[in-house]
Amino acid sequence: MSNQHPLDQTLKLTSASANQDGNQTFKGQILPAYGNMIGPYGGVIAAILLKALLQNEKHKGDPLSMTINFAAPLDNNEIEIATQLVRDNKSSQHWNLTLSQNGQIAVTASAVFSLQRQSWADQELPMPQVPAADTLKPLPTTGMPAWVANYDMRMIKGLITLQPGHQSDDSTRTLWVRDNPPRPLDFPALLAISDCFFPCIFVRKQQLVPTGTITLTTYFHATQDELVAQGDNYLLASARANRFHNGFSDQTGHIWSAAGELLVSTHQLVYFKA
Amino acid sequence: MSNQHPLDQTLKLTSASANQDGNQTFKGQILPAYGNMIGPYGGVIAAILLKALLQNEKHKGDPLSMTINFAAPLDNNEIEIATQLVRDNKSSQHWNLTLSQNGQIAVTASAVFSLQRQSWADQELPMPQVPAADTLKPLPTTGMPAWVANYDMRMIKGLITLQPGHQSDDSTRTLWVRDNPPRPLDFPALLAISDCFFPCIFVRKQQLVPTGTITLTTYFHATQDELVAQGDNYLLASARANRFHNGFSDQTGHIWSAAGELLVSTHQLVYFKA
Repeated sequence: MSNQHPLDQTLKLTSASANQDGNQTFKGQILPAYGNMIGPYGGVIAAILLKALLQNEKHKGDPLSMTINFAAPLDNNEIEIATQLVRDNKSSQHWNLTLSQNGQIAVTASAVFSLQRQSWADQELPMPQVPAADTLKPLPTTGMPAWVANYDMRMIKGLITLQPGHQSDDSTRTLWVRDNPPRPLDFPALLAISDCFFPCIFVRKQQLVPTGTITLTTYFHATQDELVAQGDNYLLASARANRFHNGFSDQTGHIWSAAGELLVSTHQLVYFKA
Repeated sequence: MSNQHPLDQTLKLTSASANQDGNQTFKGQILPAYGNMIGPYGGVIAAILLKALLQNEKHKGDPLSMTINFAAPLDNNEIEIATQLVRDNKSSQHWNLTLSQNGQIAVTASAVFSLQRQSWADQELPMPQVPAADTLKPLPTTGMPAWVANYDMRMIKGLITLQPGHQSDDSTRTLWVRDNPPRPLDFPALLAISDCFFPCIFVRKQQLVPTGTITLTTYFHATQDELVAQGDNYLLASARANRFHNGFSDQTGHIWSAAGELLVSTHQLVYFKA
């Protein structure tokens, strides 16, 4: 246990019940190591939901898309995840999930899995030109929420200094990021990282205000062989907001492999009070 | 009936059952007027799901986000929509939906609704500079799938000519669009339009190949007063793909009001065979 990576310790699930139709429930607990300002880090909540699908005996293929709706804050009590195979097609599966804690549904999710197949291919969105990760210093994690210490982040753009003079009209945050300690990349780790961007409102206002993700949708472009090739190298991550309005903003982000392949497009809607 | 706009005719739902917990079912039928290459146009499937929520007696506030997973093709038979209020918070609601046809679930969806409130506001993504709608010709709809005739589209970028010489390395499609005949904008109509972009693979390859949306997530930045101000004016819509790979591509799109307000950010994952 103690030799396991913190992410693997946190994503540990035990099967509680299963039926023939692909409905299976799991129990687990999100460790304080991945705590955020209130409750656990959203990326790890997403990852443990994906982990439940990967442990479901009926799953086939790889994750293609996943949407997570955060309906209520979580604490560190036991969680129960119910996975339901809604539709099992020849080459794809549609899943629904709920995460319950203290007797109530706190998170809902849906996912599409698909078998891999060859096709015409092209990447329109190139990796931005940035300094190499090893030329940048790791972000100090003192005073940060617990989850940040599980990542090695090398900030390129979008620093939060809390200096009013650093208020910006651009919410773009760009960074190199990998698990800390380093860990070979897999789909749950990649999904967890897709929520690694510090809140856009912090960057714009250079103030810490109440904020949280309402819903997160991640599309996986990555294939298994690209994950293996990436290993535990740094990923390049970049995200921005398009509009802040009526207490909400959106965020669109992208994550590239060290080799420049676009592995993930990730989108979220964020609540803020400012 | 005959005086009603085709969209309102198609989005007609009758309540079939309702309980105290906010679970309510509806019956309807998607008219051939909104037919696509196979089955109905995805935007109208999305809109009828949103319509069901707006007709649910327990709904409060306005739609904030909606994710629709297309698990199986539909036909023109009767549909049944089940709406489930998963979590009813003080200022927000989390909904799950299924759309069944011929005795099977064909579409799943989730949505977040929220009460409006004032906040700090800013729009980072400006409307692109484009020629005015009335200086452009409407797209001819002859030979197009039926749904296209219900929109007045003025193409600016991303034409499909099926000429190999027009293959492009940029999937961007930009157009002015509004309902045809014109119809005051509301949330279902805006959601329907968020899927109006011709398939990115058609633009890139200048070939008609099998393609379809797997999952669609739309974030509503628009408020009721912005919809009213927009009325039946043209909307500016623009979308692009980021990566084509292993038979799938993503798409990120944005829709601006005539006044330049970003009303919608919309994302989808698309299947293609090429």
